[in-house]
Amino acid sequence: MNTPLHDTLGTWKRSHYCGELTSAHIGQQVCLMGWVQRRRDHGGLIFIDLRDREGITQLALDPDRDPQAHSKADRVRSEYVIAVIGTVSARPEGTVNPKMKTGEIEIEVAQLKILNSAKTPPFGLDEYTEVAENIRLKHRYLDLRRPALQKNLMLRHRVARTVRTYLDAQGFLEIETPVLTKSTPEGARDYLVPSRVNGGCFFALPQSPQLFKQLLMVSGYDRYCQIVKCFRDEDLRADRQPEFTQIDCEMSFVDADDVITTMEKMIAQVFRDCLGVEVTTPMARMTYAEAMTRFGVDNPDLRFGLELIELTDLVANCGFKVFAEVAASGGLVKAINVKGGAGFSRKDLDELTDFVKIYGAKGLAWVKITEEGWQSPIAKFFTPTELDALGQRLDAAQGDLLLFVADNPRITNEALGRLRGHLGQRLGLAAKDDYRFVWVTDFPLLEWDEENQRHAAVHHPFTAPRDQDLPLLDSNPAAACAKAYDLVLNGSEIGGGSIRIHDQAIQSKMFALLGIGEEEAREKFGFLLDALEYGAPPHGGLAFGLDRLVMILTGSDSIRDVIAFPKTQKATCLLSGAPGEVDEKQLQELSIRLRLRKKEQ
Amino acid sequence: MNTPLHDTLGTWKRSHYCGELTSAHIGQQVCLMGWVQRRRDHGGLIFIDLRDREGITQLALDPDRDPQAHSKADRVRSEYVIAVIGTVSARPEGTVNPKMKTGEIEIEVAQLKILNSAKTPPFGLDEYTEVAENIRLKHRYLDLRRPALQKNLMLRHRVARTVRTYLDAQGFLEIETPVLTKSTPEGARDYLVPSRVNGGCFFALPQSPQLFKQLLMVSGYDRYCQIVKCFRDEDLRADRQPEFTQIDCEMSFVDADDVITTMEKMIAQVFRDCLGVEVTTPMARMTYAEAMTRFGVDNPDLRFGLELIELTDLVANCGFKVFAEVAASGGLVKAINVKGGAGFSRKDLDELTDFVKIYGAKGLAWVKITEEGWQSPIAKFFTPTELDALGQRLDAAQGDLLLFVADNPRITNEALGRLRGHLGQRLGLAAKDDYRFVWVTDFPLLEWDEENQRHAAVHHPFTAPRDQDLPLLDSNPAAACAKAYDLVLNGSEIGGGSIRIHDQAIQSKMFALLGIGEEEAREKFGFLLDALEYGAPPHGGLAFGLDRLVMILTGSDSIRDVIAFPKTQKATCLLSGAPGEVDEKQLQELSIRLRLRKKEQ
Repeated sequence: MNTPLHDTLGTWKRSHYCGELTSAHIGQQVCLMGWVQRRRDHGGLIFIDLRDREGITQLALDPDRDPQAHSKADRVRSEYVIAVIGTVSARPEGTVNPKMKTGEIEIEVAQLKILNSAKTPPFGLDEYTEVAENIRLKHRYLDLRRPALQKNLMLRHRVARTVRTYLDAQGFLEIETPVLTKSTPEGARDYLVPSRVNGGCFFALPQSPQLFKQLLMVSGYDRYCQIVKCFRDEDLRADRQPEFTQIDCEMSFVDADDVITTMEKMIAQVFRDCLGVEVTTPMARMTYAEAMTRFGVDNPDLRFGLELIELTDLVANCGFKVFAEVAASGGLVKAINVKGGAGFSRKDLDELTDFVKIYGAKGLAWVKITEEGWQSPIAKFFTPTELDALGQRLDAAQGDLLLFVADNPRITNEALGRLRGHLGQRLGLAAKDDYRFVWVTDFPLLEWDEENQRHAAVHHPFTAPRDQDLPLLDSNPAAACAKAYDLVLNGSEIGGGSIRIHDQAIQSKMFALLGIGEEEAREKFGFLLDALEYGAPPHGGLAFGLDRLVMILTGSDSIRDVIAFPKTQKATCLLSGAPGEVDEKQLQELSIRLRLRKKEQ
Repeated sequence: MNTPLHDTLGTWKRSHYCGELTSAHIGQQVCLMGWVQRRRDHGGLIFIDLRDREGITQLALDPDRDPQAHSKADRVRSEYVIAVIGTVSARPEGTVNPKMKTGEIEIEVAQLKILNSAKTPPFGLDEYTEVAENIRLKHRYLDLRRPALQKNLMLRHRVARTVRTYLDAQGFLEIETPVLTKSTPEGARDYLVPSRVNGGCFFALPQSPQLFKQLLMVSGYDRYCQIVKCFRDEDLRADRQPEFTQIDCEMSFVDADDVITTMEKMIAQVFRDCLGVEVTTPMARMTYAEAMTRFGVDNPDLRFGLELIELTDLVANCGFKVFAEVAASGGLVKAINVKGGAGFSRKDLDELTDFVKIYGAKGLAWVKITEEGWQSPIAKFFTPTELDALGQRLDAAQGDLLLFVADNPRITNEALGRLRGHLGQRLGLAAKDDYRFVWVTDFPLLEWDEENQRHAAVHHPFTAPRDQDLPLLDSNPAAACAKAYDLVLNGSEIGGGSIRIHDQAIQSKMFALLGIGEEEAREKFGFLLDALEYGAPPHGGLAFGLDRLVMILTGSDSIRDVIAFPKTQKATCLLSGAPGEVDEKQLQELSIRLRLRKKEQ
């Protein structure tokens, strides 16, 4: 053996977690096992902070009590794994730490075993050490020792537990759907898995269990749920991962209202059990149209006002050509009133202008309401009457900053809506512990796909139109709304779903609207279409993004802080080195070969 | 619309499941929704058996009560989806069906909606229709309507629920591990996933989360569990699927006894909650050596006797050359006594001989104990004294059948052990509702790999040797036993695991024994080896096969009867058509191309 042999566990059994001991345990003999957080010598005594997932307890080793344990303690270093047997005792006066749960006690150690040694970690494991994320991901097993990450994953466990308990009580059955399935042409890019037995063919990893959960409703399972991994091979943004986890649900014999009611109670239960926060139900609801009008986005953050005010009618004939022309061409002129924002500097305003340009706006007009009245490059283009009307509608008062965008409806709403969100953060209007939920409903059924010059489904081709909009499918499909709903929390969509089409004739009409021919539909969705013909019940459902929900619950800024073994934005695992190269023999078995990369050709 | 529009759900809300109504509900107005199991006319009245996942209720439609509902009922056919509002009433005398939970009542229907129509299914959905499995798999959404399959999946849900509830109460955290991970060279063939971002590199789907769960222990999570999909690209046997589900657990600061105790209580809880069966704990335990000696296999079925009796010493010098030579060359001669089996025909015995040949035995010697004494082709080779000794050790009595195998130890044990299992089934000694658990422990650490002329790990290279066997790693590694354990139920291994090596020096020694060089070990398992150097606690765990467990609990003969959307033995999904062909563009993005198949070259 190259390293000294460590002590074995032998017959020792742990009696408590470190974090659970309090003065109520004083006098008890305990056996603790964990990691050395810190060791310090103090006049011959050795003190060790012993850590496990539940917390830290102080060990005290007196050479007079047990010289052997004391001498072993002298050898331990940070992150050594040790076990001790000792007596819980009150800390001497003056050494009590009221900030720690275990701060009133320490363990008078009688016996100590060194179960394993540890090299010095490449970075400190306390809360305060800032380390480059790639170093942390490479040594993820050490990073995962940080109390903050442990709390996140423990909370994630509790969220999943609460969800399952709630859904089970509501009659949902958790049923597993395949991971090796068929490539679906809709949606994002699939991860593919070459088949060995059927050379030249590929499985795809599911982007969602959508078709399977609908089939389960056709099969009469009535209520389905699954906490399930889904996969998208997309270029990753900060809050995306190649594999992500959904809380996936589907119900039969329901309308949108039933799904919403069932699901919002589940979310309220999660907040109650996992965060101790009471969420009021029923939650607020808002149509898509209202969300766009008032907030410019379909995921409004309701923690603050700053609503978008439409001014198009007021500026239709004004002297400011930019506004007048937008109004005349069917565009939208809208503004927000930043109360007390008149102090924004020229530099601030330039930054805000750059911000709205990201979303396609050509500019951002501004007005400060000062003691002297309207201070603005554009004020001179308006008559006093026009200014009065604008000021009245915008509720403008001295000290306010008015910000205007004029463009086509899409750009005006998005630019000003995003600006609203940006200002909410910047002005500290969005408290992390204020949870404002809103269901956004009645989404448009279709959107126009400029690139392919045809309609596309806003959600997916199985989303049902509202009953009252069925005639519109023939007369004016773009005006039809869907039985679709998203749950938005503090500006983030945390879940969404819809009532599905259960009538084969309507499904066929939907495919026709989407320009999907009968043959193509059969090829792509044949088994779902078949299933609809054999007695499909009315059904609908919803999926929540578990990762994002846990991010919000833990106040995490990165999705990687709520996943045990996340991938980088380049979709690699720095810990395991995945993806990696494989043997030629494996490729042969799978009937594939590598393409030469350009530089090698 | 090509088909007639169906009724909409409107404001109707289901009040009960069909299966839950009893005479306690008589007089209540209810709203039921479900599928038409059967419709029959009876003197102007129409009776419909309405089905949902909870059961069947009889609907009665009287033209005098509501002509419109009656006339709609006249249009419904099998598997139509309908909703009714009506009153629960007692069935007229003489029409009560005591076999059904709802057999005392029927619904006097006042209103009826046809929510969807249905084509005639390609096969009957009752329990008694036998249909080729490929037809059933193609129309899985119909097959899944069968009550037997619904019961299986509902039980599977309850098993998972019980497992999670138990493990949560024991402090286990469910933590998700990656599906897109690194190809591991040990074990079975991996499913590979080509990386788009890292062209030429591949992810692998996990065969188990083994390395990740060990890392979580190094990270201090203390108790991990996960009900998780695993993947093996192997040629499929009857009870295998490309993707299967494990109940995966790992614990820190434990020895084998702690894992066994914790896990057997979980299994007992599953049997109690899901089956109403009380399982005695602690469960039986048996070393691997004892299992091989007494039963010839490491997964003995303890529902019956028929134990293997060793006779090598008795036949070492006998006149029957076959036995004597095997004894002289270090082989084993063993027999089983089939009590009352003397009636087996010559044909029966030929079949049994063919059976043992599957496992490499060259033949099966037999003796019938008849009124006239030993009737056997081999009796003549033995002296009366030898026959007496054999008879005594085998507890032979008139009417018995003795079956002998003589070969090297591996073949003798396997052939006779399998024959024992076969006879147990054939003779009806193995009752389906008799549950006999046994932990098989102390497996050998290593086995000799003839092909590569080196040791291989019986479990995996991270399995710890017994403490007392550590010196054997240097002196006689083949004799070392592992801290490994399998839980066997009625002859099936339903779970297995081990205490892992947490000491880096022992892990290195293990790799050396397996002929894995330092560089190779680093390349393959580098991150685990690194982790072991930074303070790994003693840890161990276990994984149960959920599919097989549910098979046993439901008494299913096929794994496909406990999985909602299974694959065929050729690893295809007849429902979705997976795997399928993909676009050339997709292959280009993944930097791969298809190999031409031979006939196309």
